[in-house]
Formats: sequence, C-alpha cells, structure tokens
Amino acid sequence: MLKPKTVDDGLLEELTKVESMGARRRLIAYRAGTVVLRSMVEELLDMGFEWVLPVMLSRTTDPLWPDPGASIETRPELEVYGVRVRTMQSMIVHKRVLVSLGPPKFFILSPNIRIEKRERGKTGWHLYEFTQLETEIAYGRMEDVFRVYERLVTSAIRAVRSELSEDLREIGRELRDFGTPFRVVSRRELERAYGPEWERVLPHKIEEPVWVTDIPREFYDFEDFETGTWRNYDLYMPEGYGEVLSGAEREHDYEKMLTKIKRDGLRPEDYEVLLRLAMEGKLKPSAGAGLGVERFVAYVVGARHVAEVQPFPRIPGIVSPL
Amino acid sequence: MLKPKTVDDGLLEELTKVESMGARRRLIAYRAGTVVLRSMVEELLDMGFEWVLPVMLSRTTDPLWPDPGASIETRPELEVYGVRVRTMQSMIVHKRVLVSLGPPKFFILSPNIRIEKRERGKTGWHLYEFTQLETEIAYGRMEDVFRVYERLVTSAIRAVRSELSEDLREIGRELRDFGTPFRVVSRRELERAYGPEWERVLPHKIEEPVWVTDIPREFYDFEDFETGTWRNYDLYMPEGYGEVLSGAEREHDYEKMLTKIKRDGLRPEDYEVLLRLAMEGKLKPSAGAGLGVERFVAYVVGARHVAEVQPFPRIPGIVSPL
Repeated sequence: MLKPKTVDDGLLEELTKVESMGARRRLIAYRAGTVVLRSMVEELLDMGFEWVLPVMLSRTTDPLWPDPGASIETRPELEVYGVRVRTMQSMIVHKRVLVSLGPPKFFILSPNIRIEKRERGKTGWHLYEFTQLETEIAYGRMEDVFRVYERLVTSAIRAVRSELSEDLREIGRELRDFGTPFRVVSRRELERAYGPEWERVLPHKIEEPVWVTDIPREFYDFEDFETGTWRNYDLYMPEGYGEVLSGAEREHDYEKMLTKIKRDGLRPEDYEVLLRLAMEGKLKPSAGAGLGVERFVAYVVGARHVAEVQPFPRIPGIVSPL
Repeated sequence: MLKPKTVDDGLLEELTKVESMGARRRLIAYRAGTVVLRSMVEELLDMGFEWVLPVMLSRTTDPLWPDPGASIETRPELEVYGVRVRTMQSMIVHKRVLVSLGPPKFFILSPNIRIEKRERGKTGWHLYEFTQLETEIAYGRMEDVFRVYERLVTSAIRAVRSELSEDLREIGRELRDFGTPFRVVSRRELERAYGPEWERVLPHKIEEPVWVTDIPREFYDFEDFETGTWRNYDLYMPEGYGEVLSGAEREHDYEKMLTKIKRDGLRPEDYEVLLRLAMEGKLKPSAGAGLGVERFVAYVVGARHVAEVQPFPRIPGIVSPL
C-alpha cells in the first residue's frame, strides 16, 4: 500500500516567501506555462473552438457535490447589488447553457476558487485558486473529448521538449512524449485491481496517461440509469502525479436532471435556467472537460508542489501576502 | 455640449434574458472576441512576453483611488482560512512585484471585479466583471507600452477585417484600419480645449485612437513631484466609444510611494510587500497597461452596450441568473 503523498513543511514555508517567486525552478516553470498555454490555445483555435472569457461571480456555480474527489471547506458567498452570489467553483452550468444557445464548441481559461480543506495543502496537488482550460462541444461524445485533449497534451509536451530542452536539463526533468490514443480503463476495474484507494495507487502504476471512466459524481454528468454506468472520465498522469482533467458527456433530460438534483440533496432553484431550458427542449446534449493548467504544468516541469508553478501560490490553508 | 451617453431600458432588458446570448449580433461579437484574443496573444508571444495566469482573491488589490474614472459602490471582502481577502480590482500590485522578481515582461488575461455604481449600467461602457489584457515591462517607458498596444490594436483590427468581413457586413459595421503611431495629447490640453468634461467629449472629436497622458490618479503611477506631471496614459477610441486602456510608468521609490499612499488616505499596511521591496531596493522601475478586452471587442463590432459582447452580461446593478 502506497503512502499518501505529503509535502514537507520546509517547501511550504519556502513557497510562501515572496522572493521565492524569482527562484530558477520557478522561472522555468513560468516559461513552461507560457509554452503549454500557447500550444494548447493554438491547437484549440486550429480545431475551430471559440475563445470565451470567464466570469467569477454567479448566482449559480458547480456544486462539487457529490464528488469523491471534492473536499471543500467553505463555499464563499458575497452580496452584489443586493443579490447573493458565489465565487466560481467551475463554469459547468454556464458551459451547458452557452453550448446550447451559443457557439457549438468553445474553450474558456477559467479561474476557479475552491476552498479546499487545509490538510490538502500537503498533498502537493491541490490549490485554492487555479485555472481550468474548459471546453464544451455540442453533441460531442466521450471519444471526441478524448481526441481533443490527447492532441493538446501531446502537442504541449512536444513544444516544451523542443523549446525548453536546456531548461528541462537544468532542472533535471526527463520529459517523455506519449503515444495516442491513451488507454481507457473503467473505475470498476481499478477498484478490483487496487481497491478503494485506486486514485492514489494508479499514478504510480502507469507509464503513460490513462483515461478513467464511469465515476459516480455530480448530477450534470451522464448516468445510464439502467446499467448504473456514468459516461464521464478523468485523465491521470504517470510518475505519481495523478488527475489533471475531469469531464463528461452531459445530462440533458429535464426529469432525469431533476431526479438527480433531488437525490443529491441540492436545491432545484439553484439550477433554474438549466432546468427551464431542459424542460423547453433547448438544452443540447454535449460533452466537455476541464484541464487543470497548473497541474499539467507541474507535471511537465516535475514540480514538488503544484503551487511551484504559480507566481502567487494558492496553497490550501496558507493565505500569502499577495 | 454633448449629452452623456445612456442606453435605453429595452436593451438592458433584452441583455438580461438568457436566450439573448444566442442572438446573431451576439454570436458575431463572440467570434470577433476570439479573433481579437488570438491576434493579441500571438503578437505578445512574438514579442517575447510570458503568459501568466491570474489570481482572484488577495489580501491586496488595486485601491482604484483616487481615480477620476472610478465609481465603486462596494469593494467585496470575504474570509478565506481565517484571513480577510478582497476580490481582484486589478493585478497592478502583483504585476509590480512579479516584474521585479520574476519574468522581465509578461501578460495576464486578468478578470477584474469592480462593483460600479448602479447608474453606470446605462453608460453602455461599464461592467462589474470584465477581463483586462494586462502587461508589465521591467525598465519599460511610456513609449515602449505605446508601441506594444499600437501593434496589438492595429493587428487585431486587421485580423477581424480580413477574417470576419461578411460578419461585419451583416451587422453593418464599417471598421477602419488605423495608422501608427497614435497621436499623444496631454490631459491639460484637453481640459483647455473641451473643459472638465473632456473624457466625454474627446471620443466624439477624434477619427483615430489617441493617447491621453498626465492624469492625476493612484499612487503607483509615476508623478514628477517638481513639474506635477504624471507619466501615465489612457487610450481613447473614436466614434464616441472612449477609453479602452489605462497604464503608466510606475513609482519605485520607497519614500515617494509612502508619501503618496498617505496623501491618498490609504493604509501602508495594505501595500506591505510593495513597500518592503522598494525599501530594500528590489522594486524595479517598469511600465505597463491593461486593455479592457470587452470594451475593445465592443468597439470592433460597434456594440450598443459593452455587455453585448459577454455571453453572461455583467451590467452594473443587474445580477443575471447566470
């Protein structure tokens, strides 16, 4: 059985010092971030995705519940013009509406605020603010999203290897190219192979990125009520890193969404627009995903903590001066 | 004397309807947004700028005070891990620190939250959430920033004209190319020519974009204490549109910043890192700017309200369901 990954206190202390943003390893991480973002955005634009800007405050946001991976301490609310709004946990609801009424495929570099429990500061893999590269494709299927992100991941790695080879050498990072398509494994298989802690074990057992499918979670992911199978997925990176992306084919049926919202103990009025559009037959089926940009860059440079790639680290439990 | 621009209630009502995000004019505005963002980001990357991701919650943010253009109703605060933080009004403090310790030039697509007074919903030019294309250049001067944004503005307009000519025709938008460099005019000249309401008059008097310099405002912009001149600037667009960008050469002297912070009635402890780095001689001189992406796209498509270019409009005083 593998130990849970923990980061030592020295590293956390180092990362909270303002001056550490100028350390060599950090400067190289920012350069890698630039190359990754440029490569991914160029690929998406080449594939015909539109570029949508994010919003941060909204009456509705991702409940992140129930989700086996979520561990949220508080869901910040504030009042704007007399209305209670929440800080963005993810733009999933916005994406579902926009892909139904607006452009048929688009991406968003979307900052997310997730006040993770303090103990997650030591996993090395959680942040309380980070950016997701979100996409959504009208009438898309799982396999369409797999192909899109396989292209983004492999192109970005190729670009970093070719443009930053000296930087990688300097920090001792051996970065490999991966073949496509990536392997697809169901969560049930992983449970059988590795037990209930499969999420922790899997990243140490693989040599290439792996798609994991069929994960019971939020109401908006498509669930086959007859078989109990979920048409959703996460992407896991090797070398102990882990999950860098979550996505799904989506629910679009009114009754089914309402049933699931109630089953999850959520309030239907928080998803009023989504439900109304579904009832009126205006909510299109779609599929999409969100890739954690900082996590992917952390993998690319072999970071000791995902916050190393942020100039202004957002480590759960630690609020830096900037 | 020109009337203040006001938007009629019918348009505000239309924009708050979720379905209106799918209107033809809006879809064309999103396409224009994609072309503008792609063009500007490509140009910045070509010029060697690094791409930094934004943060949204911070113990320190732009005071937006004193600023003749600011009209903020509330400055939202919330508590994260027991610490009071503010939602980002602009990343100016973060940019000043990063440009001193980290990459010597970079850009950030930075969502800003500015809870503008409700009456500003009708100016057609204000939003309570928008994205700034922020840059900062170590040891840069005003003229360096002028050249960067002249290139961004003219390249983006050329790209939209060439790629979206049919869309522009459909919405009846005649978009012109501009020559560079843009004209530079001081605020004092404009006051002499147009009186204290020059900001409102100027956009109707010009045929090309114009740089306006020397605007008394926040402590971090460079002020020559001997002449009383400020080495800062705004960029104004013609056809009645107005200001789309603000920027400056920055203060880096400890005593001078402290004097100005106190003069403005601000609390030095809110700018602790900035002041400490200045005292230790680590704060580099720099220059930079932030361009309001939605405003620029609104100009490009000839929008009736800047919120028309947002799929999820953020009109002051109106909190939409999404």
